Amino acid sequence: MLVASIYLRKNACSRELLTVFGTVALDTTRTPFRTETRILGGAATFASISSSLFARTSIVGVVGSDMPADQINAIRSKGIDMRGIVTVPGGKTFHYDSTFDYDLSNRITNKTELGVVAGFDPVIPDEYAMSDYVYLANNDPKQNIKILQHFQKPKLVVCDTIEFWISGSREDVVRMIKMADGVVINDNEARLLCKEVNLAKCAKNIMSWGSKFAIIKKGEHGAILFTNENQVFPAAAFFLDEIVDPTGAGDSFAGGFLGQIACKNKFDFATMKEAVIYGNVMGSFAVEDFGVKRLLAITKVDVEERYKRYRNLVQF
Amino acid sequence: MLVASIYLRKNACSRELLTVFGTVALDTTRTPFRTETRILGGAATFASISSSLFARTSIVGVVGSDMPADQINAIRSKGIDMRGIVTVPGGKTFHYDSTFDYDLSNRITNKTELGVVAGFDPVIPDEYAMSDYVYLANNDPKQNIKILQHFQKPKLVVCDTIEFWISGSREDVVRMIKMADGVVINDNEARLLCKEVNLAKCAKNIMSWGSKFAIIKKGEHGAILFTNENQVFPAAAFFLDEIVDPTGAGDSFAGGFLGQIACKNKFDFATMKEAVIYGNVMGSFAVEDFGVKRLLAITKVDVEERYKRYRNLVQF
Repeated sequence: MLVASIYLRKNACSRELLTVFGTVALDTTRTPFRTETRILGGAATFASISSSLFARTSIVGVVGSDMPADQINAIRSKGIDMRGIVTVPGGKTFHYDSTFDYDLSNRITNKTELGVVAGFDPVIPDEYAMSDYVYLANNDPKQNIKILQHFQKPKLVVCDTIEFWISGSREDVVRMIKMADGVVINDNEARLLCKEVNLAKCAKNIMSWGSKFAIIKKGEHGAILFTNENQVFPAAAFFLDEIVDPTGAGDSFAGGFLGQIACKNKFDFATMKEAVIYGNVMGSFAVEDFGVKRLLAITKVDVEERYKRYRNLVQF
Repeated sequence: MLVASIYLRKNACSRELLTVFGTVALDTTRTPFRTETRILGGAATFASISSSLFARTSIVGVVGSDMPADQINAIRSKGIDMRGIVTVPGGKTFHYDSTFDYDLSNRITNKTELGVVAGFDPVIPDEYAMSDYVYLANNDPKQNIKILQHFQKPKLVVCDTIEFWISGSREDVVRMIKMADGVVINDNEARLLCKEVNLAKCAKNIMSWGSKFAIIKKGEHGAILFTNENQVFPAAAFFLDEIVDPTGAGDSFAGGFLGQIACKNKFDFATMKEAVIYGNVMGSFAVEDFGVKRLLAITKVDVEERYKRYRNLVQF
């Protein structure tokens, strides 16, 4: 009985709400082995499905009437609060068409059709306003800044960004980072943003704008967490023999990371390190199949199993 | 008393001999910040200095009469058995001239002057014949194969190779790997050798030629150990804020790895994992200054301290 109650206590999750804002998209993904056309994708989709395994999650985004209902239902099936999804009648859902080269590490963008995302004026349902945790997934930094005003007193705001916004709206990206508590960003995008090659210097640079921590994602090489208290945590990626589609790995990482933090309802260094590993675990699931297919199929038991396997894997 | 004796036993090193064969060179290394001309370098130099902190080490190599005596004495100062160093009167020492780009991750070869290394017919002093551990550092695979015949019954032979030999003498490289027990190789060189991008597949491919394990070095991203029993160990690199000269990091890794194995005189999976971490630690020291400068300056106490720091760093 004692063991059971300790187990329950240890695995108990807070009921804090995590709200994810970003693109809900249709992706056309071409690998040398297969092409999948207009499948469910988008940064907020991956992040929210991932975080839903850890914490109470709600999503904000916009889609067109071309988004199939069963795709929206797939997200809903994970218990995610969908009241923040706006459907624009007659509008076109954000569509991202890309091709991976034969080692699945380089991606060429064929087409980015913003559709209803362009000019979207994000509002959030009243029920989301008290969210303690907010994840601003890759999206127009202006929209990300705007939506922040709707949250009353979030404990932790984390954002991501990509080359598209860094190249086109760098000042807005910096402004967004100044308003966030933490940044999760790819290595090359950190380099582009900071005009600096050394990743430690990039992280320091980002944190000098006011963010308390920066996580640099390095794809198959894992991630490094830096804090403004000079703490560092490099984590190797979970090792996979084979990957199918790298799309969404970073967003799934962010969802797992912030989901675990929302679950624990704290973000001391030890919790953040654990959360980075959960992030790695979620990224490793995401790439095992096209789109969100694998993320939709797994349960928390699978996640905990892989977390344990990861721990064994890197132990020495 | 009990504690002390356990401590001693735990830290005791075997007296097994590790012989390192490979280039002893003069390097001209150009970084955007500084150029160092004709400084002590070479795969065998880095590997043997590194391994000397762990195990009784001897070295085999060839130099010309242009190799300054103080450089040879610097290697000797680490207690390395130098009887295997042949000096060719009037000959030119192997000279490698290269330039690193501004992020110190890409290197351009300006000049490779083989000098006395070309056509070297390696022999070993009789005292080396009973070596239990042999490291064939990057070198002409034909010479590496040839020297193997001089060892009576080594317990473990590990080899490395680089693009130069893979491109020019691939069949000899494969033949060398077939004769070795383990391979330590850079990621891109593994890809080139195996004509395959996925590193797990590269490792399997290499092991299919008969080697029992393969370690893929990934520079700043650490290393992955694969065994022919399907074991995998991914290890993040020790985290450094700044690097000065990446030359020799991989050779220092190999020296630390095999040195630790020779010290323990066993190579089960647990020992190999520990040895990979020591390899990472030695690589991290090597890059902190030009050439072998930093490696020459450190003691085993520094190594153990950094090993502990590494353990703390990656713990979660």
